[in-house]
Amino acid sequence: MRLTEPLTKRFAYGIALGVLSFQLLAQQTVVTAVTEAQKETATQLIQTALESDLGFSIVESLTTEIGPRLGGSEAEKRARDWGVKLGKSLDFDKVSIEEFTMPFWDRGHLHIELTSPYQQALYGTALGGAAPSKKNIDASVVYFRDIHALAEVKNGSLVGKIAFVDGDLLVKSQTGAGYSQANQRRRVGWQHAQRAGAKALVVRSVGSDSHRFPHSGMMSKNDDGWAKIPVIAISNPDADHLRRLHNLGKPLNISLHSESKWKGEVSSGNVILDLIGSEKPDEIVLIGGHLDSWDLGTGAVDDGAGVAITTAAAALIAKLPKRPKRTIRVVMFGAEEVGLLGAFAYAKQHKDNLSNHVVATESDFGAQTIWQLVSNVNPQATELMDEIAKVLSPLGIVRGGADIAGGGPDIIPLAQQGVPTIRLNQNGRDYFDLHHTPDDTLDKINPDELAQNVAAYAATIYMIADSDVDLKIPKTK
Amino acid sequence: MRLTEPLTKRFAYGIALGVLSFQLLAQQTVVTAVTEAQKETATQLIQTALESDLGFSIVESLTTEIGPRLGGSEAEKRARDWGVKLGKSLDFDKVSIEEFTMPFWDRGHLHIELTSPYQQALYGTALGGAAPSKKNIDASVVYFRDIHALAEVKNGSLVGKIAFVDGDLLVKSQTGAGYSQANQRRRVGWQHAQRAGAKALVVRSVGSDSHRFPHSGMMSKNDDGWAKIPVIAISNPDADHLRRLHNLGKPLNISLHSESKWKGEVSSGNVILDLIGSEKPDEIVLIGGHLDSWDLGTGAVDDGAGVAITTAAAALIAKLPKRPKRTIRVVMFGAEEVGLLGAFAYAKQHKDNLSNHVVATESDFGAQTIWQLVSNVNPQATELMDEIAKVLSPLGIVRGGADIAGGGPDIIPLAQQGVPTIRLNQNGRDYFDLHHTPDDTLDKINPDELAQNVAAYAATIYMIADSDVDLKIPKTK
Repeated sequence: MRLTEPLTKRFAYGIALGVLSFQLLAQQTVVTAVTEAQKETATQLIQTALESDLGFSIVESLTTEIGPRLGGSEAEKRARDWGVKLGKSLDFDKVSIEEFTMPFWDRGHLHIELTSPYQQALYGTALGGAAPSKKNIDASVVYFRDIHALAEVKNGSLVGKIAFVDGDLLVKSQTGAGYSQANQRRRVGWQHAQRAGAKALVVRSVGSDSHRFPHSGMMSKNDDGWAKIPVIAISNPDADHLRRLHNLGKPLNISLHSESKWKGEVSSGNVILDLIGSEKPDEIVLIGGHLDSWDLGTGAVDDGAGVAITTAAAALIAKLPKRPKRTIRVVMFGAEEVGLLGAFAYAKQHKDNLSNHVVATESDFGAQTIWQLVSNVNPQATELMDEIAKVLSPLGIVRGGADIAGGGPDIIPLAQQGVPTIRLNQNGRDYFDLHHTPDDTLDKINPDELAQNVAAYAATIYMIADSDVDLKIPKTK
Repeated sequence: MRLTEPLTKRFAYGIALGVLSFQLLAQQTVVTAVTEAQKETATQLIQTALESDLGFSIVESLTTEIGPRLGGSEAEKRARDWGVKLGKSLDFDKVSIEEFTMPFWDRGHLHIELTSPYQQALYGTALGGAAPSKKNIDASVVYFRDIHALAEVKNGSLVGKIAFVDGDLLVKSQTGAGYSQANQRRRVGWQHAQRAGAKALVVRSVGSDSHRFPHSGMMSKNDDGWAKIPVIAISNPDADHLRRLHNLGKPLNISLHSESKWKGEVSSGNVILDLIGSEKPDEIVLIGGHLDSWDLGTGAVDDGAGVAITTAAAALIAKLPKRPKRTIRVVMFGAEEVGLLGAFAYAKQHKDNLSNHVVATESDFGAQTIWQLVSNVNPQATELMDEIAKVLSPLGIVRGGADIAGGGPDIIPLAQQGVPTIRLNQNGRDYFDLHHTPDDTLDKINPDELAQNVAAYAATIYMIADSDVDLKIPKTK
């Protein structure tokens, strides 16, 4: 074995002698998780990516030429055709669409206004999965300070009323901490309002901004299915307004009419772009973003950026003189927002070859710079990850603990099946200002920050794809 | 004459001997434009104002308890009643409403969407004075890069079309430079589109933000009156989107239906709160803001802030042991947004005693801190202004040139009649982010910055009201 030879499965699987040899070598010689030549190529990819506007041009094209693209819509179909055309133009070796069927929820038209103590428009939107109002609802409002207060409501106690569940602004943070917790009022608030007999539920949007935009998003269904009542998110300033009026003891009345509803089965699909590996074409390094968006904005930050970053990164690798050893697969997932439907469809369609998936990761947390690389891989492959992080360090990226890599929403079904995951964590400070609002538009993306993402993905994915290191986590007995 | 006696009209009117005496005195002695005792009181007012939340509580009350208050609306009537109640509670000596009549323009409902190259909602609003669409308009779009391009359009060349006039983001600046120029597309764009036969005009909003909010605002009428076609402002991100599609050569089609229209004569009014002067009750120091707002937001920054700042400043002066010599009048002008209607009504109703108006100024440029004091007064009174600026300097306020004091929009009719003006210029950097949008809500006001405004107004107005200096500009022959 040459000293410069990359680690092989023998080491990765922990054969005693191999590990011993490796440990001795590691102490005495250059680490060979990534060769110098590979590092040089990766560094060159970083430079190329930073000087390229390919990533921005992709998200510009998607948001401009397709626009909003709700999962299951005609627009999402146009986006798939766009993705296929893009993949072919960027010299991917294989471009395909994997279709699936899904139930379609349509937002429809909403009218909502405060009618007491006086008339004032409210800026709201139906939450995903909500039922329509059969006719106009005009009812007095019962105020709940937060989801905990609403959760304690007695069955039948809200008959004839509209419930309003307040909450607080999300704290802006790099990691998006606090979102999952705050999101409970969006996810399950309706279950409490409905069992208490409310005519409708109005929810303070889950967001860190103070702009007059509602934040959409999917609710969770319960054992009986989806909400039977309209559920409307209103903007943070509108929620502030209701809170102040409530605190003044003013009687609140809201009038609303919502047409949101389920409309039956439709088609969606995942777009698959493959760069076939030169030595191990069956081993797949999976990256991607989701092609669908909520319909209020044009899905620039969520998740046109992720599609653009990962597609551009692979496209830059495609321009190298030689394909990396393993296959690089970009998946543009369909119907993520409405329940990770493309992700589950992918996992199902590929269930027989998931063991060939070397690693999977998604870019789906906006378009700000990446600050951290985390991984959830075979401990024997940690060395490779550490070496990659060193190559990324000129981009301001640090190595994070191995215990927190989720891979991204669309990677959940793969991770559940044991596919190793990594994540290039983006700074999410502004993400929940824009998340699921009409304001998620192209102007919010800084081209230089997007290019930093492309650079990090290109270098990382190249080094993994050209490596022989096995990332698979040994099954615990 | 005591050396410490303030300047009197004798000096101000430039009697030769008096001026000579003053010049000698000014070189040799303490300047007496403001006495030390007055400076002490003014400084104490500043401290009190900085520690008080009165200003914020007023704008909170107005925006929360009244909400949006379009000129001539029932809500504006409620706001006048609110103003009267507030004035009485704050111990003003005289509180009254001066009514006037005005034509009422109602925004009505708007539906606007892009229909080619695909369906996408546009975020728009009718511009003030626009006509309704008799039925739904669905037409191809002719793109104009800016108002200059639109102004060159040939008569009859837009028959059957919708014109879209683009432009650029306003540059963010302390002074709001660029607004008047950019605003031409909002003001007179319709006149070109209409003479060319367009079915409707769509305008890029005049604003410095990149959020999905349209900026409303009044158009200018021409000799034939108001626009006969619908005129719709769309948000900057929407305008960006249309520009990109146009640049790609895509055919643009817009569908719109607007109900905006004139609805006949209604009542509005100005609310007048007076602190009667202890020595010269007929001499009036006029401050104020406008009580009406556009109807999309709650008019916090435009101009609940101005109403709050000036009312709070006068109310703090009202708590002094003794009234200043001159009367301090707070005017909450009605119907400013729709054409300075309250301002012209005030000038008309008081036309016989405008010579008693010592000075007039309005706060109507948001709620950020004041950075400059400018004045347009009798040159002999410049000394007083300079002394006031010194008292304000701990608030970070500098003295500006005398050539640029306009006094504020509602002061225009008074200035035209020779009333001297001053202005405490606010930092307008964020003003045109929010101006006339749904996003003009209470959360945009920083209470500490508002208190700085109250402090500056209280000190300034106190020193002018307790002065004997004549500010009136000598008439040129």
